[in-house]
Amino acid sequence: MFQHLESFPAGTAIPIDRVLAAVPFDANGLIAAIAQQFDSGEVLMLAWMNRQALEETLTSGRACYWSRSRRALWRKGETSGCLQHVREIRLDCDGDAVLLLVDQLGGACHTGRRSCFYNRIDNNQLVVLSDPPPHGGDIHEP
Amino acid sequence: MFQHLESFPAGTAIPIDRVLAAVPFDANGLIAAIAQQFDSGEVLMLAWMNRQALEETLTSGRACYWSRSRRALWRKGETSGCLQHVREIRLDCDGDAVLLLVDQLGGACHTGRRSCFYNRIDNNQLVVLSDPPPHGGDIHEP
Repeated sequence: MFQHLESFPAGTAIPIDRVLAAVPFDANGLIAAIAQQFDSGEVLMLAWMNRQALEETLTSGRACYWSRSRRALWRKGETSGCLQHVREIRLDCDGDAVLLLVDQLGGACHTGRRSCFYNRIDNNQLVVLSDPPPHGGDIHEP
Repeated sequence: MFQHLESFPAGTAIPIDRVLAAVPFDANGLIAAIAQQFDSGEVLMLAWMNRQALEETLTSGRACYWSRSRRALWRKGETSGCLQHVREIRLDCDGDAVLLLVDQLGGACHTGRRSCFYNRIDNNQLVVLSDPPPHGGDIHEP
């Protein structure tokens, strides 16, 4: 289905049931999910979704992932309060990656930092870009 | 190593060899890589890197991925001309995702579209957001 969509013009619409049936979840039943702050454009984190997490995200309007370490649904912010209110959901050209445009409450990262991408590689070294917040993060995430 | 880094202050630096040795490549030897246009913040694509692709990206300054379909290094833009000049590389908190801030020439997507994320899910349907460019894409990518 996604291959056919490639040549379709803007405005083409497909019912969600057909879309979900066509998403190529991998051998572990997962696709990659990127969370991006909707207004600033900051990329906050990369996580994983199974079909149930994707469906819950679509219906609840709050990001729900699959925690590979806990092997359970991960309702982002359930323990930390750092919810992600979903403004828009996109799928990529082959349907195996999701982009969530979210409004992130607090920090996306379990360390308490706003974004998980706080390590920059530069001049043959990795440099930490931001201090860990004094209040710490949420060890229950993910 | 990444777990120790979580509590380190801004400015902490680690030699790249130690970092590469600590990156938790998955069972297929891969980590996820997000490409984002450095100035507009547009998320362009999600792809995969093995260690060799990551090292080549670091040394060449141009995005190099691992094509899971072709099972080969994928020097982005080699056949299409749609190169990604890398402005900055970041790793996430647990080191299994890369964020490339790039200057994208032409379209990132093999359909010729600027971004691969041209399908929006909305009101129980998927809607194509942009027309395929008349000149088409590059069937050799990925």
